[in-house]
Amino acid sequence: MPSTLDATSATTSDAPAQASPARALVCRGCGKEYPLAAQHACYECFGPLEVAYDQAALARVTRAQIEAGPHSIWRYAALLPAGQDPASRVTLDPGLTPLVSAPRLAEELGLRGPLWVKDDSANPTHSFKDRVVSVALTAARGLGFSRFACASTGNLANSVAAHAARAGVPSIVFIPGDLEPGKVVTTAVYGGDLVAIEGSYDDVNRLCSELVETDEFEDTAFVNVNVRPYYAEGSKTLGYEVAEQLGWRLPEQVVIPMASGELLTKVDKAFSELVEIGLVEAPANGWRVFGAQSAGCNPIAVALHNGVSEITPVKPVGIAKSLNIGDPAAGLYALEAVRRSGGWMDYASDDEIRDAIQLLARTTGVFAETAGGVTVAVLKKLVESGKLDPDAETVVFNTGEGLKTIDAVAEQVGPTYRIKPSLRGARDAGLLGG
Amino acid sequence: MPSTLDATSATTSDAPAQASPARALVCRGCGKEYPLAAQHACYECFGPLEVAYDQAALARVTRAQIEAGPHSIWRYAALLPAGQDPASRVTLDPGLTPLVSAPRLAEELGLRGPLWVKDDSANPTHSFKDRVVSVALTAARGLGFSRFACASTGNLANSVAAHAARAGVPSIVFIPGDLEPGKVVTTAVYGGDLVAIEGSYDDVNRLCSELVETDEFEDTAFVNVNVRPYYAEGSKTLGYEVAEQLGWRLPEQVVIPMASGELLTKVDKAFSELVEIGLVEAPANGWRVFGAQSAGCNPIAVALHNGVSEITPVKPVGIAKSLNIGDPAAGLYALEAVRRSGGWMDYASDDEIRDAIQLLARTTGVFAETAGGVTVAVLKKLVESGKLDPDAETVVFNTGEGLKTIDAVAEQVGPTYRIKPSLRGARDAGLLGG
Repeated sequence: MPSTLDATSATTSDAPAQASPARALVCRGCGKEYPLAAQHACYECFGPLEVAYDQAALARVTRAQIEAGPHSIWRYAALLPAGQDPASRVTLDPGLTPLVSAPRLAEELGLRGPLWVKDDSANPTHSFKDRVVSVALTAARGLGFSRFACASTGNLANSVAAHAARAGVPSIVFIPGDLEPGKVVTTAVYGGDLVAIEGSYDDVNRLCSELVETDEFEDTAFVNVNVRPYYAEGSKTLGYEVAEQLGWRLPEQVVIPMASGELLTKVDKAFSELVEIGLVEAPANGWRVFGAQSAGCNPIAVALHNGVSEITPVKPVGIAKSLNIGDPAAGLYALEAVRRSGGWMDYASDDEIRDAIQLLARTTGVFAETAGGVTVAVLKKLVESGKLDPDAETVVFNTGEGLKTIDAVAEQVGPTYRIKPSLRGARDAGLLGG
Repeated sequence: MPSTLDATSATTSDAPAQASPARALVCRGCGKEYPLAAQHACYECFGPLEVAYDQAALARVTRAQIEAGPHSIWRYAALLPAGQDPASRVTLDPGLTPLVSAPRLAEELGLRGPLWVKDDSANPTHSFKDRVVSVALTAARGLGFSRFACASTGNLANSVAAHAARAGVPSIVFIPGDLEPGKVVTTAVYGGDLVAIEGSYDDVNRLCSELVETDEFEDTAFVNVNVRPYYAEGSKTLGYEVAEQLGWRLPEQVVIPMASGELLTKVDKAFSELVEIGLVEAPANGWRVFGAQSAGCNPIAVALHNGVSEITPVKPVGIAKSLNIGDPAAGLYALEAVRRSGGWMDYASDDEIRDAIQLLARTTGVFAETAGGVTVAVLKKLVESGKLDPDAETVVFNTGEGLKTIDAVAEQVGPTYRIKPSLRGARDAGLLGG
């Protein structure tokens, strides 16, 4: 069933579909090119494939064209590998999430330049995964897939199940059998198939890689396996949005959480594209990319600190579960982007993550999941260590919603007063003077 | 400290502030008018006060002016009592939440006309309360208040605490002492004062009404007490948005959850205003307003069913806690709007609410809190009883986020398969044919 990409196959509108600017899949290792199909690894060198674009097509895109588009990632459709025809989209219309000015956070951290929080908890299922899932499933339907799947423990599962429900397409989501009930509910409620596997997340991933090769799953798109190159491109929209929301400028510094490392590389790619096609000018000294991990899962940051170009996988621990990928697929590319840009990486302990969630909430009104705590905690460390220029403009990314990881701070915060239900009770507690 | 409304008092921009179209507070009971101050009840008849507008000012508002505004409730600032000057706003910029087309939900319910879900879980703290809090706190700052407060058990507390954190203004939120830890965390994390009261929600409310009269709380705006008239107007934006998102048309039927009943009356008011000032035409047969309650708290619907014009307070029970107001302040006005429009009201049991949450999620990808389940369950009943025209265009309102009330459906949904981590396990479960 999987065929080459035909964005018009699901078209129900009479309007002619714009052409996709994507022209090929290209191996990040050896550079070999492949047609736009459901393939994620190079047959020659087993390197990961990435979408390559017709640069002339990208260069025709204008700011006015983007600004006239919808209030979602699809305003950037002309820079994406799928979704040019609105009727082809499998989507909850994520994106254009708030870029929140954070002067009080800046002040507490000792930053004198402008600081912004890009708050992706505002997406429909409250994480940045809605971006990548929308692009992956739109590409998948164009490629002829008729069932959507993923292996996940949280945000990705929510997003795939919700997208499938909106589109009326069957889904099958694979999760570890010991997942917390709350996380099971937020995927199961959408009514797709939900397979609990007696094993770890690594076991779940391994089984999905086997299932994708079977006849019974031939019609099934696993968003982060067989259509991964399209999936990964969805993260570019975070970079585009930051540039547009700053008035078509790039920030001088970005601080980005790393799981596979792909989000970081794609934001960097988005900035490069915007400069190449003339939609923004690069800052005088370029932009610098900073990566954030937790102490419980820090293989990319450790490689940077050790000055090596090889990543030693770890067995992840700690509360920042949505970032816990011990063998990060795009880690080397993230290292490369950070080194090239003159940035840095660091990692934060669970206690630092908890403190940073509260710091962010208290100073900006943004309640982040643990991944957002990681990023703010690392921002703090980067300021303290002098790696980050306190006078430059900085954007820090919150990729998820605090409601999904409430337990992380449940011991830290609570009522500041406990009183009896009377004015006397209020007075005794000091709320009414003496 | 509270003075008459001066929308420019917090202005930090050089741009001249637009004038507010609000001209007075007017008693809904006897019609007596008062200046725009921090007052919520008539000194003559103790009736509730409502904002009255300069109709000539409203009539100057154009579609183009609104469409050129920000992607938030503030595009309607010229129709609101506060926030005309962007610098005066105390806000997380809520609004313009998705109007989701729901053809599969319509089909399951037997609706042949277009069905839409207005999804207010997309607001910054994930409920419609962000709308009313933004308007209330903006008015409050204009009136000179320097601390923000509320009594709440959930959504309102989250929103007030987050707004105060964003604005850097002190807040003090009052909650019942036995609140679930999860709900405490989602307010406490923003770092304001949080007062747990040894008593019921009614006790909390009563104490707040007493505190608002004390010297120590003279500088404190309780959003749903002393600045309530401004607070209530924020709900109009839900009506404006539906009209604009339908292409400047009104739907023929709306189904709205009722707690105090105010949301329903304000959506109806918004529709009336838009017709009066010429921004939309009324549908040929007008619009019909339907109200939804839970069986555990149904005083307004029961009054309608009994054909009376007096509401008998109840002691609320049941899972739809965000709607559990046993003595609804705007209940009579909601009754009046529903009767005048030719609509109806009904109520749903906890089991029906649970089923409706799943139905909505499965057919639209929208995961609602229990209040959204109430509304969809009542929509279903209204179709079955023939009260709702299945051929007319209908909008159903989801006012909150499923992540906040996960326990409601935790027993109902779960994995559809449990397997061992191997292809054999998948085969044994029937995922791989025979």
